Amino acid sequence: MRARRAETIAIGSELLGGERVDTNGLFLSRCLEEKGIAVAFRTVVGDDPGELRAVLAAALARADVVIATGGLGPTVDDLTREAVSELLGLPLAEDAQVLQVIEERFRRYKFRMADNNRRQAMVPRGAEVLPNPLGTAPGLLLRPEGKVLALLPGVPAEMERMTMESLLPRIEAEPERYARRVLRIAGLGESDVDRRLAASYAGAAPVEWTILASPGQVEIHLRERVRGPAEAAGIERLDREIAGILGVHLFGRDGDTLEGVVAALLVKRGERLAIAESITGGGVARRLTSVPGASRWLAGGAVCYTDAAKVSLAAVDQDLLASQGAVSAAVGVQMAEGIRRRLGAEWGLATTGFAGPEGGGPARPVGTVILALAGPGVSATREALFPGQRGTIQDRAAQAALDLLRRGLLGAITS
Amino acid sequence: MRARRAETIAIGSELLGGERVDTNGLFLSRCLEEKGIAVAFRTVVGDDPGELRAVLAAALARADVVIATGGLGPTVDDLTREAVSELLGLPLAEDAQVLQVIEERFRRYKFRMADNNRRQAMVPRGAEVLPNPLGTAPGLLLRPEGKVLALLPGVPAEMERMTMESLLPRIEAEPERYARRVLRIAGLGESDVDRRLAASYAGAAPVEWTILASPGQVEIHLRERVRGPAEAAGIERLDREIAGILGVHLFGRDGDTLEGVVAALLVKRGERLAIAESITGGGVARRLTSVPGASRWLAGGAVCYTDAAKVSLAAVDQDLLASQGAVSAAVGVQMAEGIRRRLGAEWGLATTGFAGPEGGGPARPVGTVILALAGPGVSATREALFPGQRGTIQDRAAQAALDLLRRGLLGAITS
Repeated sequence: MRARRAETIAIGSELLGGERVDTNGLFLSRCLEEKGIAVAFRTVVGDDPGELRAVLAAALARADVVIATGGLGPTVDDLTREAVSELLGLPLAEDAQVLQVIEERFRRYKFRMADNNRRQAMVPRGAEVLPNPLGTAPGLLLRPEGKVLALLPGVPAEMERMTMESLLPRIEAEPERYARRVLRIAGLGESDVDRRLAASYAGAAPVEWTILASPGQVEIHLRERVRGPAEAAGIERLDREIAGILGVHLFGRDGDTLEGVVAALLVKRGERLAIAESITGGGVARRLTSVPGASRWLAGGAVCYTDAAKVSLAAVDQDLLASQGAVSAAVGVQMAEGIRRRLGAEWGLATTGFAGPEGGGPARPVGTVILALAGPGVSATREALFPGQRGTIQDRAAQAALDLLRRGLLGAITS
Repeated sequence: MRARRAETIAIGSELLGGERVDTNGLFLSRCLEEKGIAVAFRTVVGDDPGELRAVLAAALARADVVIATGGLGPTVDDLTREAVSELLGLPLAEDAQVLQVIEERFRRYKFRMADNNRRQAMVPRGAEVLPNPLGTAPGLLLRPEGKVLALLPGVPAEMERMTMESLLPRIEAEPERYARRVLRIAGLGESDVDRRLAASYAGAAPVEWTILASPGQVEIHLRERVRGPAEAAGIERLDREIAGILGVHLFGRDGDTLEGVVAALLVKRGERLAIAESITGGGVARRLTSVPGASRWLAGGAVCYTDAAKVSLAAVDQDLLASQGAVSAAVGVQMAEGIRRRLGAEWGLATTGFAGPEGGGPARPVGTVILALAGPGVSATREALFPGQRGTIQDRAAQAALDLLRRGLLGAITS
């Protein structure tokens, strides 16, 4: 018997214009692959009842598993429930239990419940309700003619949680699943990674291999078909080979983040970090505080975008600022040392630079980034020139700062 | 006669996995809207001949203008030409002129032309060839039953240039184009906006209306068909009406951001801001420093995730922390006042709260956010309970903090 194939449908007129892409489809593709079900079609359709019905009908004709996201909200634009009800001839009725959950949610957050929220309690006959722990719109699961038709909210956080907790456990896996692994690399460019791994790539079969680069990070995506719970032997072999070649540049796998890796290293060492940010403007701290329990190892940070703040918060010498300029290695070192002393942390990390569009000069143009790290037995600075626009330069600077810290914590800085 | 509608199709199995989205569709939507043609469907399909034919057939049945990108390369995976030929019953023949262009291109770049590159010279009978100045794959334009079917390469730079230079001049514009506007709202939930604007919504025609909510922000997308260069009278009228109803909750239009609006208000008032962030962990500063020229009005910020940092950087009383707890209005006020004094700024903004997953308690559970604003003649605190996970709570807290500041700067806080 051939493996079942899937279609994902993103519903919402705002996804057909020139601004927004459907990103829910990416998440759903990964989830379905783990069940051995490949996505064969991905569709976007607007909030038009006729077009929506036509798209749902086409999907149920050509795919075995259909997952539609969006159009379950409380407004008149939200038409998914009605479209499915009409298409499959299943009348809608208010579900008392669903209504109760919605009402409780409004009470808990002390919001007034508008009348139109009742629409979210309408359920097509025979549909199974998938609870939404993060929002008011419940999901719905139907099984027309032995196929799977799931309706989920379009809000990514809600959709992802409901998929993991409620939908996937209700979808039978194929005998062969797709195993995947992402290897995450910092501190090397895409073509550099490509060159170092050319021989591994040539011998990768049966593992499929994709390299994806985003500013300051390269990812290698590996995919292999394996039977049931068997180990993905090809992926394991390649992982060992690549780890041997890339060494410390390989910072993590799958969902790992630089901030998570750095946090784990600080916890393991029982040490604390203080940050002084100029060019990154709070971006390093924001990423670090996304890690739960950050208060155990993050002593604090200063956003010192001006000279006065560098003096006041990070104890930089006014004279040094005047003589060297704020974008200099000497000022970076003082920022890292100053904030570390002030907050009594073992590690100090500092960023400065020119993010543009104005500032900089011939010697240090826009895109210049200076990083400084001070820690037990470590004192290091790095200077880089990043291409791109303001936001990209700031993001790359934050990424490079976290990677410098990671290498310092690993004892991998030779200066 | 009703306006024609379009479907864009992205072809390529790599666009169905968990990593890549089709971005060509965004560009094509913008181009087509300027011709007055709305994209009603967007589809992604892989390199499977049967699935590709099925998708093309469905598109030609439901849309008037169909633009497919990808699958025109030289490899066996590139099946678009064959699929169209079979679907429309138009035999393929080698086009001598196209072949010559491809051969010349190889000679110019001194590459050896592989045999499979001849495949790119195969043209379905009656198709018009669209030249590709940046690559070897030419585009093809067909007009089955009065409809438009364009085949373009998937490489964005090639596709965009060919669309502008060859395709759009060959697509007749509708007599009317689409004008659009986005209205941006903070401080009100989606259903609250919905309720207040119910009457405006009912009378919106001929303007089309979509409400989009993301954490802490509601957007109203308006779209109107207008004749040639005429003013979008319906959008102008609705904009005035909605602005009158929502008042200060409406913070901007189109590309406006809260941080940009706040920056402009500070510049206009000639005043400066200092920030003390606990729960938002640098997120408020990161957003503000994304605005070019932030050093003119952002005096600096402190990320004081720990009690010690609140004392050291924002001059909070140790005793107050011990008696009230870090998540309290009294501590928030001291943070805002402390950082403002320390950095000599007119305005001080502070955030504290429990982002989870740990922390909090029965009185102040995870999701509790306390904001404080101190400024000329203004001293305000706000307490909220936000649903969602750690990252969402942090983002909503940053959004609410920027909105509190905006209202303070507008003199719209009544406390």
